[in-house]
Amino acid sequence: MSEQCDFLITNVRAATMDPARAGGYGVIEDAALAVVDGCISWIGERRDLGDLAPREVLDGAGGWITPGLVDCHTHLVYGGHRAGEFAQRLGGVSYENIAKGGGGIRSTVRATRSESAEQLLHSAERRLTALLREGVTTVEIKSGYGLELDAELKQLRVARRLAQKYPLTVRTTFLGAHALPPEYDGRADAYIDLICDEMLPAVAKEQLADAVDMFCESIGFTVAQCQRVIDRAHALGLPVKVHAEQLNNTGATAMAARNGALSADHVEYVTDHDIALMAEAGTVAVLLPGAYYTLRETRMPPVESFRAAGVPMALATDLNPGSCPLGSLRLMMNMGCILFGMTPAESLAGVTRVGAHALGLGDSRGMLRASYRADILLWDIDTPDQLAYEVGALVPERIICGGTDVIAG
Amino acid sequence: MSEQCDFLITNVRAATMDPARAGGYGVIEDAALAVVDGCISWIGERRDLGDLAPREVLDGAGGWITPGLVDCHTHLVYGGHRAGEFAQRLGGVSYENIAKGGGGIRSTVRATRSESAEQLLHSAERRLTALLREGVTTVEIKSGYGLELDAELKQLRVARRLAQKYPLTVRTTFLGAHALPPEYDGRADAYIDLICDEMLPAVAKEQLADAVDMFCESIGFTVAQCQRVIDRAHALGLPVKVHAEQLNNTGATAMAARNGALSADHVEYVTDHDIALMAEAGTVAVLLPGAYYTLRETRMPPVESFRAAGVPMALATDLNPGSCPLGSLRLMMNMGCILFGMTPAESLAGVTRVGAHALGLGDSRGMLRASYRADILLWDIDTPDQLAYEVGALVPERIICGGTDVIAG
Ligand SMILES: [Zn+2]
Ligand SMILES: [Zn+2]
Repeated sequence: MSEQCDFLITNVRAATMDPARAGGYGVIEDAALAVVDGCISWIGERRDLGDLAPREVLDGAGGWITPGLVDCHTHLVYGGHRAGEFAQRLGGVSYENIAKGGGGIRSTVRATRSESAEQLLHSAERRLTALLREGVTTVEIKSGYGLELDAELKQLRVARRLAQKYPLTVRTTFLGAHALPPEYDGRADAYIDLICDEMLPAVAKEQLADAVDMFCESIGFTVAQCQRVIDRAHALGLPVKVHAEQLNNTGATAMAARNGALSADHVEYVTDHDIALMAEAGTVAVLLPGAYYTLRETRMPPVESFRAAGVPMALATDLNPGSCPLGSLRLMMNMGCILFGMTPAESLAGVTRVGAHALGLGDSRGMLRASYRADILLWDIDTPDQLAYEVGALVPERIICGGTDVIAG
Repeated sequence: MSEQCDFLITNVRAATMDPARAGGYGVIEDAALAVVDGCISWIGERRDLGDLAPREVLDGAGGWITPGLVDCHTHLVYGGHRAGEFAQRLGGVSYENIAKGGGGIRSTVRATRSESAEQLLHSAERRLTALLREGVTTVEIKSGYGLELDAELKQLRVARRLAQKYPLTVRTTFLGAHALPPEYDGRADAYIDLICDEMLPAVAKEQLADAVDMFCESIGFTVAQCQRVIDRAHALGLPVKVHAEQLNNTGATAMAARNGALSADHVEYVTDHDIALMAEAGTVAVLLPGAYYTLRETRMPPVESFRAAGVPMALATDLNPGSCPLGSLRLMMNMGCILFGMTPAESLAGVTRVGAHALGLGDSRGMLRASYRADILLWDIDTPDQLAYEVGALVPERIICGGTDVIAG
């Protein structure tokens, strides 16, 4: 090396999360990392660095660097809140029954339709910046509370505005098939027609979505209905993701794997056969412990079976007003360990490398590796195990997003 | 009213938490609140305000005010961390067995003894300021990781320095009887002698503790040993608190009630008889859902029985490096609801009025009431139910601590 670089980080240990390096964290002791044009131009042992003319040097003071965190499953643009239903659920009413009774998602749909884009932006900014302060540098945002063309477009445009306004990477997902809108009661197939014939083409034309998702559950849409959405998405060149097997087994995960979906999300009720299909297809299992916790579920996703089969496990917030009003990805790392029995290294992989993979960004984000985007966190910690262990006080000393300092600690 | 006041808050709804007002939150719709010399001089309906000459008016913009939050049980001054044991526990080793094996508390004792006061202060500040940013204006801090005179004094002095450095109220608790120090192995009674004959008098002489606590559990100290500590504390004029019935029933809660303790903390394994004694004595049940969650316990504290018997329930973080590295009282409000079945109003009472009561501060903190300290939070919310429902993005717009703005939103 003898090139110039924009800046150089030294005097740090690196949890690269690069599987080409040893251990769960892909550790480099005494690392150096160079950034050029917002990307990592070099990373390795400091002694191998060679000649370099950095414009700026960041002394890590013996701390750790990790990739920026990736929250690969959120619904963070929404109207209103559901604190009232929260009290109801504490009184024993199930999420399913609240949904069947016209509450649940539908009350958020009413609020999301009625709020202006400015109002939606305002509340979403709060949630986004809270994630950013924790070190989230890539976030996925789903639509799915509009359930009519204009309101879905409004949600997705708000997500795109967030991307313009903040330095982090926003990936948008069209989730028109989230719930049946009230005006289509008893006519789910007609609503799927609307999604396939009008909504998806409009979303694709405006390039508002990077992927397409669907809620394939007993209280959502059937496998046959979802297959139609997948076919249309693929015809428009959009990858798919599936909310699958949260409440029981519907065949959603098998469908996701057969169709080469980026991810199957929730997956508490997958079978061994589903897992084999996921492993074969390379479909990521996105685990959402916040929803599991909030809904007081008792069926855990089969972490050991995923591990044994080599199915990569991501962790995400599922941030939404109903089943997970917990806007902290660091808390999800802790819950992935405490509630699901993941190891601290698996939980960090779940919110970096694997989370990026679940968004189709595995070749540019989620690892500290040459050519990857310079999304880098500096932590004042002794071991990356602390990132899953501590919640609250521990925040990054520095957040570097695309090579630019977001917060200096 | 026609006096002067330092400032006046109007255009707000108030969750006063005052049991003299209606409902779980003691709500005043369209409230006004006046502050003089750091205390609330008047609170009520705005229309009843009368003539007042405020030096400053704070327009609450239709939001809600609540009392500042009270975290009545923390161990937030400590050395090191236990992320390594966190991984061990995930592997199935019990907290009790880690403790018996010389790890657990003892590894924190080693770290706390060896760190300087400056080092302890530095890490404690992080944890304290994270709580403060959430709206915590009163925090209790226990010693108990020194287990020898100098190190216990060092911990308590650090807690007192935090009180000088930050605007919030710090109450210190001497917890010498937290665990048996290694140099007293097999000689618990001799260690109790040391506590009673040397440590407690020294702590009292330097006025370093506002209360005395003890770990009365099968892996801690016996009821007989704890009774000696209580007697000595009372002789020195110090109120007591007891870590009780976390792992099984040892009679600790009955002892606490009989001795007029401020609180019995954890209390998962209390009996109906214990509950009756607590109700009679006015002993607060301090519930610690973060430890319950982290230790994957399955025995819930009997919330319905406490409710039925009229035992006041506080909620606290138990922030500590072993069984609860979760430094968020707002998360505990959520966990109190989700894991223990408390209502949102009970959870807010638990971190305000009842938390203050558990510290012997029930006549000055934890409510919005005339003469109380002006510890006031302003929230941009529609209903106080949101405070237990949402975690992450929702932080106070303003934090007023003893009449002074800590953060302007
Ligand atoms: Zn979701
Ligand atoms: Zn404790």
